[in-house]
Amino acid sequence: MEKKNKEITSRDVDFAKWYTDVVKKADLVDYSSVKGSMIIRPYGYAIWENMQKILDKEFKKTGHENIQMPMFIPESLLNVEKEHVKGFAPEVAWVTQGGSELLDERFCVRPTSEVLFCEHYKKIIKSYRDLPKLYNQWCTIVRWEKTTRPFLRTREILWQEGHTMHATKEEAKAETLQMFKIYENFQRDYLAMPVIVGKKTDKEKFAGAEETYTIEAMMYDGVALQNGTSHYFGQGFAKAFGIEFLDKDNKLKTPYQTSWGVTTRMIGGLIMTHSDDNGLVLPPNIAPYKLCLIPIGKGEKVEEMVNLLTSKLDKEEITYQVDNSDKTPGFKFAEAEVKGYPIRIEIGARDLENNKITLVRRDTLEKIEVEANIDVIITKIKELFIVIQKDMYNRALKRRNSMLYEAKNYEEFKDIAQNKNGFIKINWCGNVECEDKIKEDTTLKSRCIIENEKVDGPCCVCGKEAKEKIYFGKQY
Amino acid sequence: MEKKNKEITSRDVDFAKWYTDVVKKADLVDYSSVKGSMIIRPYGYAIWENMQKILDKEFKKTGHENIQMPMFIPESLLNVEKEHVKGFAPEVAWVTQGGSELLDERFCVRPTSEVLFCEHYKKIIKSYRDLPKLYNQWCTIVRWEKTTRPFLRTREILWQEGHTMHATKEEAKAETLQMFKIYENFQRDYLAMPVIVGKKTDKEKFAGAEETYTIEAMMYDGVALQNGTSHYFGQGFAKAFGIEFLDKDNKLKTPYQTSWGVTTRMIGGLIMTHSDDNGLVLPPNIAPYKLCLIPIGKGEKVEEMVNLLTSKLDKEEITYQVDNSDKTPGFKFAEAEVKGYPIRIEIGARDLENNKITLVRRDTLEKIEVEANIDVIITKIKELFIVIQKDMYNRALKRRNSMLYEAKNYEEFKDIAQNKNGFIKINWCGNVECEDKIKEDTTLKSRCIIENEKVDGPCCVCGKEAKEKIYFGKQY
Repeated sequence: MEKKNKEITSRDVDFAKWYTDVVKKADLVDYSSVKGSMIIRPYGYAIWENMQKILDKEFKKTGHENIQMPMFIPESLLNVEKEHVKGFAPEVAWVTQGGSELLDERFCVRPTSEVLFCEHYKKIIKSYRDLPKLYNQWCTIVRWEKTTRPFLRTREILWQEGHTMHATKEEAKAETLQMFKIYENFQRDYLAMPVIVGKKTDKEKFAGAEETYTIEAMMYDGVALQNGTSHYFGQGFAKAFGIEFLDKDNKLKTPYQTSWGVTTRMIGGLIMTHSDDNGLVLPPNIAPYKLCLIPIGKGEKVEEMVNLLTSKLDKEEITYQVDNSDKTPGFKFAEAEVKGYPIRIEIGARDLENNKITLVRRDTLEKIEVEANIDVIITKIKELFIVIQKDMYNRALKRRNSMLYEAKNYEEFKDIAQNKNGFIKINWCGNVECEDKIKEDTTLKSRCIIENEKVDGPCCVCGKEAKEKIYFGKQY
Repeated sequence: MEKKNKEITSRDVDFAKWYTDVVKKADLVDYSSVKGSMIIRPYGYAIWENMQKILDKEFKKTGHENIQMPMFIPESLLNVEKEHVKGFAPEVAWVTQGGSELLDERFCVRPTSEVLFCEHYKKIIKSYRDLPKLYNQWCTIVRWEKTTRPFLRTREILWQEGHTMHATKEEAKAETLQMFKIYENFQRDYLAMPVIVGKKTDKEKFAGAEETYTIEAMMYDGVALQNGTSHYFGQGFAKAFGIEFLDKDNKLKTPYQTSWGVTTRMIGGLIMTHSDDNGLVLPPNIAPYKLCLIPIGKGEKVEEMVNLLTSKLDKEEITYQVDNSDKTPGFKFAEAEVKGYPIRIEIGARDLENNKITLVRRDTLEKIEVEANIDVIITKIKELFIVIQKDMYNRALKRRNSMLYEAKNYEEFKDIAQNKNGFIKINWCGNVECEDKIKEDTTLKSRCIIENEKVDGPCCVCGKEAKEKIYFGKQY
């Protein structure tokens, strides 16, 4: 594809620079004097609003209710579950003063809300009749990161966090998998992102969880993005908080817990999966504006066609932008490309004389001439949305698959790790020592354990008996 | 009306206790170890989600875009506009430590975001082509209050804050009034709340604003609730931040600014306007569930009617709850009353034998027998929603009007202030000394200047020439 935008670094030259160029030029984010945080600009926030709308509907359909917890956590409350506090204390922001008074006990700004939900659950769960509790929260959390990148790693993160309590282990495990599946489907069907899913190793799981299921997306550069997790907690937090319920058999029991979340990081994943040297490329199913109408010249016929088209689009509830500025057509095209509108419609006086208009696919930049008839145009557009969505997924899948490797022994592993970008599959004995060794030798971390795939050799690292197949990769 | 709920204090006995009983018993909020903050429980949050949905649509219809700013403000940035910092610094929460490191400069958690928007506007506004900027943000803010009450005064507040920039004074003033009007219409048409609107005095206006328009609602006990404000800033912030744009005439000019906001406090206002000794009373236009279906007994006919009705309600997109618990009918009725569902539908086997069902209005507890025919029921329900909404507004209006007073001289004013609850209208000279004197003598504060009403006597306090009519009242 021809690279036309001189203000965006080529992604094959400097991927990190390309990424920040795209998020800036497409008006997704801006920086401020609040270091480590970002301003999510209207166009970026509109993508997040779409994500929220779709996911929130899925959560409610599966019986979840939204709730709002405090944003602060007193230090003593954070300390209740030992593994959890170990994981989060080093990266929280501490409020030590309110107005002019020093606080007796400092508060952290929530890095996640398990302890707040547990304290609440302790109060409201008494009987089996109170279960399950299926709560979700949309909010901002804070983790005091040293190095930050827009959407991928920021001090403030917009996210949702589901927290549920169940009478039985089976039900909690089913919930963990159900929500995980919702994330996977969403990323495939709306974000057009092929993902690898599976369980995290003990070393990489969430602080306090028994099992963490992860969604691992691979970016254009072969680096992994953890793009959503679902945790099964067992009874760990519930026991630490003394949560008990009277079951049908009249016995006091401890409930089973889950939590699950996705963040604005998904926007980063979306960009690094699909976008190109001309800017953003958005799948139709998540784009805030599916179309950009570009009138060329000012004739009456052009105006009439724009009016006819926009009123039809309104009726069909297809979102669009119209670029009525006095910029040159070339400039408008480039801008539409930077913004990643899935299709742009060029409406020119000369074309209309020949009874045609031109559609341009953002993903391929292919030009398609169509009869200048509203019904023909709308039919073609709808057809293209489906094709673009599918093509974007398939291109991403093909690229991802071309960067999946398998190593039979450790020499091979190190060779791939050094020379290739992507995920490397190995047989693994299940011991953290081998995981640590890989990280030390290559900086690669385990991505996820592969379910339903049998081992076919000894552990790639130590040569002892393997228990599982597992992926390793570099990560964002 | 008969008081049946023994767990709720009577509002005429102890209004403050009644209020906290209602918010707790109706499952709107809960407390936690985070003092001064509240947990907004699913039923309370669903009311907020409805408010957001309706207002967000209005904001977007009038051209506003959502954005997300950082939640932290560096101390030096808060200090840029002098009036503003004076107003807010005494009540902010300070973050002084990130992870294990003390920060070089402390951050406050945003009490409001004017300075963040101004810093951003300084970067993105260069030309008249960049104006207007019409941004809104849904977020949580923090004000370190000493004494707190759920929804009315809490350390954390969920709200929306609009921040706009305009090329001309006229446009900015029109925006201030437009958004103010949207709030007023929303509170009248959805919350069934009659409100008094007008300008704040200089003493009571927002820190940094030239003009503050306020929406003053009167609660059941005659006390005022400031339930939304819209500010015209003039060029104050813009000059402090050095924001300039090149106008069409090729001259550098300073833009004009507004901000406007409403908060979860509206939920408190809703409760204190309409609810009664049996619990919450919600207007149909804002209720998360418009109906509660209560099957009485377990017969096949009862089940069949519930199924027919719920599938019809789903189709009509009318929200409802079904109480299928094994509690007694009386207990279920009381619970439906506490929750304030606008109508409950009692579906009993004996009634069905006589081909009827019973609807009960929550606002009046009136029982209405209806033929047990789906179409008849649905028609009647829809009719009742309109009637209930209107009746609730009219009752609130009548009550509010019965607590509006007018004082011709200061003795009369003090007499009313001491013996009555409500708002007192006076002629006022416009001097802050008279405003201060009233506060000192009676604790009453000015509510708002009354527009379009001529003075008809001297200043009620000092006896000098009056300039304006103004309301005073106690406030939450």
